[in-house]
Amino acid sequence: MTGHSLVTSPIVLTTDFGTSDAFVGVMKGVIFGINPHASIVDLTHEIAPQNVRQGAFVLGANHSYFPIGAIHVAVVDPGVGTDRRPIVLETPRAKFVAPDNGLLSEVIRANLPAQRPELASSGRVILPAEIRAFELTNPRYRLPVVSSTFHGRDIFSPAAAHLSLGVLCEEMGPRLPDLVYEPLPEPELRDHVLYGEVIYIDRFGNLITNVEVSALSQERLSRRPSRVQVKDREIGGISRTFQDPVSCDLAQPDGLPLVALFGSNGFLEIAVTDGNASASLGTGVGTKVRVNFKP
Amino acid sequence: MTGHSLVTSPIVLTTDFGTSDAFVGVMKGVIFGINPHASIVDLTHEIAPQNVRQGAFVLGANHSYFPIGAIHVAVVDPGVGTDRRPIVLETPRAKFVAPDNGLLSEVIRANLPAQRPELASSGRVILPAEIRAFELTNPRYRLPVVSSTFHGRDIFSPAAAHLSLGVLCEEMGPRLPDLVYEPLPEPELRDHVLYGEVIYIDRFGNLITNVEVSALSQERLSRRPSRVQVKDREIGGISRTFQDPVSCDLAQPDGLPLVALFGSNGFLEIAVTDGNASASLGTGVGTKVRVNFKP
Amino acid sequence: MTGHSLVTSPIVLTTDFGTSDAFVGVMKGVIFGINPHASIVDLTHEIAPQNVRQGAFVLGANHSYFPIGAIHVAVVDPGVGTDRRPIVLETPRAKFVAPDNGLLSEVIRANLPAQRPELASSGRVILPAEIRAFELTNPRYRLPVVSSTFHGRDIFSPAAAHLSLGVLCEEMGPRLPDLVYEPLPEPELRDHVLYGEVIYIDRFGNLITNVEVSALSQERLSRRPSRVQVKDREIGGISRTFQDPVSCDLAQPDGLPLVALFGSNGFLEIAVTDGNASASLGTGVGTKVRVNFKP
Repeated sequence: MTGHSLVTSPIVLTTDFGTSDAFVGVMKGVIFGINPHASIVDLTHEIAPQNVRQGAFVLGANHSYFPIGAIHVAVVDPGVGTDRRPIVLETPRAKFVAPDNGLLSEVIRANLPAQRPELASSGRVILPAEIRAFELTNPRYRLPVVSSTFHGRDIFSPAAAHLSLGVLCEEMGPRLPDLVYEPLPEPELRDHVLYGEVIYIDRFGNLITNVEVSALSQERLSRRPSRVQVKDREIGGISRTFQDPVSCDLAQPDGLPLVALFGSNGFLEIAVTDGNASASLGTGVGTKVRVNFKP
Repeated sequence: MTGHSLVTSPIVLTTDFGTSDAFVGVMKGVIFGINPHASIVDLTHEIAPQNVRQGAFVLGANHSYFPIGAIHVAVVDPGVGTDRRPIVLETPRAKFVAPDNGLLSEVIRANLPAQRPELASSGRVILPAEIRAFELTNPRYRLPVVSSTFHGRDIFSPAAAHLSLGVLCEEMGPRLPDLVYEPLPEPELRDHVLYGEVIYIDRFGNLITNVEVSALSQERLSRRPSRVQVKDREIGGISRTFQDPVSCDLAQPDGLPLVALFGSNGFLEIAVTDGNASASLGTGVGTKVRVNFKP
Repeated sequence: MTGHSLVTSPIVLTTDFGTSDAFVGVMKGVIFGINPHASIVDLTHEIAPQNVRQGAFVLGANHSYFPIGAIHVAVVDPGVGTDRRPIVLETPRAKFVAPDNGLLSEVIRANLPAQRPELASSGRVILPAEIRAFELTNPRYRLPVVSSTFHGRDIFSPAAAHLSLGVLCEEMGPRLPDLVYEPLPEPELRDHVLYGEVIYIDRFGNLITNVEVSALSQERLSRRPSRVQVKDREIGGISRTFQDPVSCDLAQPDGLPLVALFGSNGFLEIAVTDGNASASLGTGVGTKVRVNFKP
C-alpha cells in the first residue's frame, strides 16, 4: 500500500451489541472521525449477549474470508472496565483488536504450531513467535475520555482506526507473552464413534457441530461415517446438499427429511431440507451428536 | 466510467441470510478481497428463509431506486448445490447475479415487451432481446474451492465483484435463452370488482397487495374505487396519507382507523393509522382483498 | 475539504424503518444515485415504530460521536405526507435532515443557550442564532416524483445527498424561525431525592434513566447518592463497572446483583451483572426511579 492510496484495510466488526441500539453506529462514527477513508464491514453484531465462546467460534470460522491485512474489532466484553486487558493480536493474515477474555481463542488455535499448546497457566497460552499481542495502553490511540462501560467506542474502535492509518501494533502498548485461551470443546473418538456436540445454530435452524471435516482425514477415520445420531434420530450418511435425499431420517415414521453434511466452514451440520432442524428437533447449543464409523 | 475512476457501480445485496450469522459479512469480505474499492449496499437480508417468491417481490419493487449500472446480488437459494444454475441477468438498468430459481421473475416481468410472455415451457420464459442471461460457469470468477452449500460466498459474490471491476457478463459463461419464471399472482377483474391478495407485510404491519396503481389507469377502471374490503372490514375509499381521516373503518363499531392507499412502490396498501394492520386484523400473506368500483 | 477530495461528510441514518424491509436500502440507493462517493453509516433503524420521543433520545445521546460536519438523516415520521414540514437543521457540529415533529428536540436542547428556552407557542421553540433551520421545499433537491408515504426516500435522502456534495442549507428552502420542541422529561429534586424515570432500555436489558451525571455536579448535589431505588429494589450506591460487587441488591433475599452506574452517554443506568435488568425486574420505559442523596 502506498502512502497515497485511498484504500485502507477493511475494518471488520464482530460484537454482541445488536443493531437496535446505537452502539455499533457510534463505533463507526468514532472510526470515521479518525480515518474518514475507513472501509468498515459488519461480520455480525448478533453474538448472544456476553457469550464470549460463541463470539470466538464465529470469528474463528469466518475471519479467513477477509482480505489479508484486515483489521478485526471483536467486542463481547462482560468484564468491560475491570482489569481484563484490551489487546491487539497480530497474525500473518490479520490484526485483531479485542478484550483479552478468550474471544480470540479460535484465532489463536488456528495459529498454534502443534496440537499441544504451551500453556502459561490454567486458561492462558504462551503465544508462538509467529503471532504477537500488545496491550492497548497508549493514550494517543484512545478517545480522550475513556468510560468504564463502552470500550468498543473509547478504546477498540480508535485503535482499529489508527491501525488502518498505518500505525504499528507495537506502538499501541507493551508486548504480551500470553493471552487468555479457552478453545471450543473437541470431539472425542472412542471405539469408532466420534462424540461431538452442537456449538452453534444458524438462522435456518441448522445445527453446526464441533466435528470438523479435517478431523476425518486422519488415517484412523479413513472410512466414511455410516450414521450420524442426534437425540433419538439417526441419519444414514453424509449428504452433499440440503436437498440430497440420500440422508433422510430413516429411523422415524414421521419422515422428517434430516440431512447431515459438512457445511461451508468445514463443520458437520445437521439440517432439515427446506425446514428448521433446531425447531423440529428441539435442540440447542450443547446437544450431543455421535458420528458412527462402524461399518 | 473512466479507467482511473475510484467509483465502481454499487453492489446491492438481497438475501434470506439474516444478519445474526456471519453469511453476509463473509460475502462482503470476499467482495473486498477482489475489489477493495467496492461500494456495497444491503437492500435487505430478512427475506423469509427460502421464500423465493418474497425475494422476487422485494427485488422487483425496489431495484429501480438504485443507480443505473448497479450490480445486484440476490440469494434466496434452497436448491444451492443442486443442478439449478447460477446466473447473471443483464437488463438496460442493472445486472442481477442470482440462482435461476424464479428469484428474478419480477425483474424479468418488468422487462417483458408484451402482456403475454413467450413461455419456453411450464415455469420458464424465453428472454426478449433487450435482456441477456449467462450461466456463471467460468472458474476464473469463482472462489478456488466451491462449496455445495454457500454459493453466495463462493460463486455469486465473486462474480459481482469481478463485474464491478469491469468484467463483461459474457465472460462469465454461456448465454442462456430462457430462465425460470414464476411471476406473482395478478389480481382478477370481475363485474367491476378487482380481486387481489396480500403479497407482503412490512415492519409497520401494513398489508401490501398485488393491486398496482398502474392497473387502475386502464380505461375500464377510470372511476375511482368506492370501497376496499379485507376480511370482514370495509374501507370507504382511497386515502393519500396514513393520517387521512376520510377512509376510516366505516362499517365497524370498534372504529379501527383503517386506511387504504397506494404506497410508495405503487401497490395498494391497507394500514391502521399509527397502528399495525396485520396484528389488528390477524392477516397474513395470501389474505384476499377486494377493490370495488361499483358506484 | 478541497474541491478534489473524494471524502465527503458521512451521512448518518437514524430511522424506525427496521432492516427487514427494503426502506433503508432504497434510501441508500437514492443517495448513491446523487453522490456515488457518499459514505453512509447506520446509527440505528430500530427506533420503535412511530416513537418520535425514542428517536429524539437516541439521536441526542449519540450524534456527538460523529465527525464534525456529519449529515444526519432522521426519519420517525408518523405524519408523513401531512402538513408537518420536512426540514434541515444546521448546528455548529452537524446538519440534521428530518421531519419537524419533535424528533430533533434533544439536538435543539443541546444547543439552547439558557435553561429556559424561548417558546414560540405550546410545543414550539424559537431557535437561537447559533442554529438555523430551513424547510426542504426546493424541488431541485427532491426526487422528481414525491410520494405521500415515503419522504425518507423522496425528500430526506436526496436532500442529504445534495448537502454531502456541498449544497448549502439555505438553498434547500425558506428559513424557519421556530421548530417543534418536545424535550424529554427532566428529573425533579425534592427533599434530597431526585425523581427520575426509565427513558430507554437497551439490548442488554439495561435501564437507562433521565438522570444525567451532569445534574449531579450541581452544588446542591455535591454529595454522592446513597441509594438508588427502582420498583421495590434498592441499590446501595453507584458502581463504576457492570461487574462491580459493591452495589448489589442489598435489600432482597434473592440476591439479584443489581448495579447502578453512569453509562457511556452520561445517563444513570440500572443493570444486572451478566444479566438482563429489564427482564428480571419487569420494567419498561416510564418506570420511576429515585436517587436518594440523604446520608
